[in-house]
Amino acid sequence: MSAPTFGGVVPPLVTPLTADGAVDLESFERLVNHLIDAGVDGLFVLGSSGEVAFLSDADRTVVLTEAVRISAGRVKIMTGVNDMTPARVVAQIRLAEAAGVDAIVATAPFYTLPNQAEIETHFRLLAAATTLPIFAYDVPVRVHNKLSLDMLIRLGAEGIIAGVKDSSGDDVGFRRLVMANRAAGSPLVVFTGHEVVVDGALLLGADGVVPGLGNVDPKRYVDLFAASKAGDWEAVRRIQDELSELFEIVFQASGVSGEAAGLGAFKTALAHLDIISTNRMSPPVPALAGETVERIQAIVDRAGLLVR
Amino acid sequence: MSAPTFGGVVPPLVTPLTADGAVDLESFERLVNHLIDAGVDGLFVLGSSGEVAFLSDADRTVVLTEAVRISAGRVKIMTGVNDMTPARVVAQIRLAEAAGVDAIVATAPFYTLPNQAEIETHFRLLAAATTLPIFAYDVPVRVHNKLSLDMLIRLGAEGIIAGVKDSSGDDVGFRRLVMANRAAGSPLVVFTGHEVVVDGALLLGADGVVPGLGNVDPKRYVDLFAASKAGDWEAVRRIQDELSELFEIVFQASGVSGEAAGLGAFKTALAHLDIISTNRMSPPVPALAGETVERIQAIVDRAGLLVR
Amino acid sequence: MSAPTFGGVVPPLVTPLTADGAVDLESFERLVNHLIDAGVDGLFVLGSSGEVAFLSDADRTVVLTEAVRISAGRVKIMTGVNDMTPARVVAQIRLAEAAGVDAIVATAPFYTLPNQAEIETHFRLLAAATTLPIFAYDVPVRVHNKLSLDMLIRLGAEGIIAGVKDSSGDDVGFRRLVMANRAAGSPLVVFTGHEVVVDGALLLGADGVVPGLGNVDPKRYVDLFAASKAGDWEAVRRIQDELSELFEIVFQASGVSGEAAGLGAFKTALAHLDIISTNRMSPPVPALAGETVERIQAIVDRAGLLVR
Amino acid sequence: MSAPTFGGVVPPLVTPLTADGAVDLESFERLVNHLIDAGVDGLFVLGSSGEVAFLSDADRTVVLTEAVRISAGRVKIMTGVNDMTPARVVAQIRLAEAAGVDAIVATAPFYTLPNQAEIETHFRLLAAATTLPIFAYDVPVRVHNKLSLDMLIRLGAEGIIAGVKDSSGDDVGFRRLVMANRAAGSPLVVFTGHEVVVDGALLLGADGVVPGLGNVDPKRYVDLFAASKAGDWEAVRRIQDELSELFEIVFQASGVSGEAAGLGAFKTALAHLDIISTNRMSPPVPALAGETVERIQAIVDRAGLLVR
Repeated sequence: MSAPTFGGVVPPLVTPLTADGAVDLESFERLVNHLIDAGVDGLFVLGSSGEVAFLSDADRTVVLTEAVRISAGRVKIMTGVNDMTPARVVAQIRLAEAAGVDAIVATAPFYTLPNQAEIETHFRLLAAATTLPIFAYDVPVRVHNKLSLDMLIRLGAEGIIAGVKDSSGDDVGFRRLVMANRAAGSPLVVFTGHEVVVDGALLLGADGVVPGLGNVDPKRYVDLFAASKAGDWEAVRRIQDELSELFEIVFQASGVSGEAAGLGAFKTALAHLDIISTNRMSPPVPALAGETVERIQAIVDRAGLLVR
Repeated sequence: MSAPTFGGVVPPLVTPLTADGAVDLESFERLVNHLIDAGVDGLFVLGSSGEVAFLSDADRTVVLTEAVRISAGRVKIMTGVNDMTPARVVAQIRLAEAAGVDAIVATAPFYTLPNQAEIETHFRLLAAATTLPIFAYDVPVRVHNKLSLDMLIRLGAEGIIAGVKDSSGDDVGFRRLVMANRAAGSPLVVFTGHEVVVDGALLLGADGVVPGLGNVDPKRYVDLFAASKAGDWEAVRRIQDELSELFEIVFQASGVSGEAAGLGAFKTALAHLDIISTNRMSPPVPALAGETVERIQAIVDRAGLLVR
Repeated sequence: MSAPTFGGVVPPLVTPLTADGAVDLESFERLVNHLIDAGVDGLFVLGSSGEVAFLSDADRTVVLTEAVRISAGRVKIMTGVNDMTPARVVAQIRLAEAAGVDAIVATAPFYTLPNQAEIETHFRLLAAATTLPIFAYDVPVRVHNKLSLDMLIRLGAEGIIAGVKDSSGDDVGFRRLVMANRAAGSPLVVFTGHEVVVDGALLLGADGVVPGLGNVDPKRYVDLFAASKAGDWEAVRRIQDELSELFEIVFQASGVSGEAAGLGAFKTALAHLDIISTNRMSPPVPALAGETVERIQAIVDRAGLLVR
Repeated sequence: MSAPTFGGVVPPLVTPLTADGAVDLESFERLVNHLIDAGVDGLFVLGSSGEVAFLSDADRTVVLTEAVRISAGRVKIMTGVNDMTPARVVAQIRLAEAAGVDAIVATAPFYTLPNQAEIETHFRLLAAATTLPIFAYDVPVRVHNKLSLDMLIRLGAEGIIAGVKDSSGDDVGFRRLVMANRAAGSPLVVFTGHEVVVDGALLLGADGVVPGLGNVDPKRYVDLFAASKAGDWEAVRRIQDELSELFEIVFQASGVSGEAAGLGAFKTALAHLDIISTNRMSPPVPALAGETVERIQAIVDRAGLLVR
């Protein structure tokens, strides 16, 4: 029996909270099973969607440990090791290793003001500190640097990184990455982190997708991915259009932060579906409320997700 | 006989220059015929690719007049009316009307610091000043504002604008625009202005493409569009990959401006193909030279474009 | 008799409009005399504060011609030659030359995406096209490039530019410019374009100031500059604090563009002082209205400006 | 005996490293004494200049403990509590409290995408978690949000924050902050974090300065501050000009990150002055080397700092 490989649909799990603000382990278990039952290929815990930046080390450890326990080897577990610089990221890697995850996902340094050479050194230092596969997370909206194409291909060819999770919003760059990776013998597993352009990403050759919306509707992403493998692009488009309609939940709030609107919508939808218990967010982010919640619920209902 | 409609492949023509820096009318005629012979659906003159920002009003008039004369009704002519504010854009619209083009393409105000309400007023003032169809050109990298989705749909529904040329680099926003337009009864013709993600754009429902690279290889874009209409998405992807390889010409220069690298590459390729006479750029932009030119020529040759 | 030199207080005049939107020549004459009577050292017409980006060439010509006629040699006239690229700026320079102004003020290219080398070529081409002194206008918030220190000093040393109007908001860069200019033998006349940090700018060695707020209260800027020349820095600070209180007029509007809030406040104050007839702005910018106007009037009244 | 108050010259200490990359405690002790002997009013440890983002929690604890031990109550100790969100910053506050510092300095959340309301909640949560005075650190170049004027005044008036360290580079905003604070009864102690515009900042009413360059030349900053208190603004300017010449050390490197160039220059100068042992930086930042080091040493020598 060969080890499961990376790729396909790997949702970045939200981290459910109780009404008191603690990590809600019961909800988390329901969420993990909800996703695995839907047929996802892997789980990405402690990503931006998992509010990693808001969680203490103790809470991060709980999430990691529980994810490994609940999934019980059914799918691969990737995890964010979110911190500013090599010395601090390595401390996070140790938590991930102790919990027994399968791969880590690391951004460029942030808060600091690195150039591309320092970013490359950063990834090399992480690789020297662990045997876990490393995925580079390209998220300039948060870290304010784009990972350069040449660097990614070079780090892939040398085995420093195993893949890329692209949340750069740069579709031209994404195609160039996929093409350059193919020309280099495909050392990298390339994921798109965007929810509503997965059809195009798969058409051009992406290996997988890490969709925050996949928390809410994992089944359609699984179907979409299968249709792409079958070459049925009309089906891919149709399912993507349905998911894109559902994605409108993230645009319902106004006057709140992007975190509150986007992650808050995912949690609000999951609470509406009784998968998690509350739509509570980590401080200082407020939970969505009032008419925004109602609009989100209506969109979820229109998508036909309420099966209970 | 019905009027030709907007959509399909509409390359934004470069403006060829002589060695003295004048508009090169002979080269321009060859370019227009090169594109029409390849089967394009329309021509977009005086866009960013046409160096509109660099041309005097006299030169703009020459380009417009010649484009209309040479195309002789074979395809529709769209034109940029590039200036900062309504009063000044209207003066450009008068030049376009006098030349007899079929539609105009206008950006948000720039240099000034408008909000979305002022941008909307801007388009309303332009529409009040002309009977020509107006396409909104969404190009935040140049004007530093993104056109809002709600505004575009509202202006479309009211008949203020006829369509959108999207060069925003925001693929999520592009899908939302296409979906919202469809939900509104498709009042807008939606073009993507990006060269290497046309496959995905067409899969999700774009009406056409305005590819700068289409100056160099119009035939492949025509074939790609036809394949999409036929639902042959594997062919679409294959042709897009070939075009994406060719698009690498814009990444060959280093240490020069985006204008010099990108438009300079298009002109360098066209000169190599003997369609235009020089790769000269408008001041203060230098022409590409030396090894950069050789690398571009090699890429063009690999694409199998040199048929003479 | 020697020619007047550049420096000191040079307000960037607003362009008054009639209720119909035409340039209001009577108001403009009152404004020019208001400023000269207050003792300003020069006038800057057709700057950003003069809504240059919104005016047709015909209106620009009217403003230039009238400014020269009314000032009648009492003070120097500087003028903006606002357009995107060398070919188009030179056309604006011709208007300025025909009107008989004393100097021109030019930005880096905009809308296009130049690098510093192209920006330098831009200024060299302008200098080759005119004998008028050229001031480089450093305004990254509008043109999205900062003029490099090395380039400015080099262009000054070669006599390509006569000075710099710094509206970059980069106070560290401003001090470095003043120091580098001094080390180079002071080839440049260095103006700050910021209203509320003139005390510090003069303390560190600026040659003058181009304050939009100087339309409203030219006398205090003249007094402030005189106090700095006398080395009375406590007086400089006191006057600057008074002007800074008055500058709060630009922060009274909400939900409108920067143009509407800032220039709109200057025009609203000037209309309240009966110097100009309306606070109307050029399309698509709305005039300020309602309680915003009342708040601005109250601030103006507190400053003791209403002498009629 | 009253408690020492906050204000005056408070240098943000670099964190010296040994050749092995460990915190160099001997160098740190020399640095602390170098600064206190020069007459500074306080010490700011674990700021951006202290490479806080690069240090593990263990190293942070060492720095805090040593700073408190060495200073032995001679001056106040402020410290950065650098992390992304309230839950994680509070963990850092616990380290600071355990070490016995006098005040903490906190930024807005980063990596996350907060709005101003969430930023305000963030500071309120920190205040609820500690009795230490909190200084808000306004550093948009790192956290990509500017702290709003209204929020800062409100938090000051309510006693949530004790002051502001402004490294925003927005001199207009800084003057508005100082004026609004004065109008509110001066609840805030306002520091500028910029090295070369301290003269203007003190003229307009700043309470103190946190200059990275103060590591290298604390005496001149102490003299400058004293001259400002004496109202001798010509002396203030002269000393500031000398410091500005010295500040050119940060512009000597090319092709490296801002961190490497700026902090690297401070460390290189301090090593040249034999105050610290190496100019080594924390990974992934390289130490400056070669001709860059020589140019920095020459600038330091010209400033007359090499007294040994």
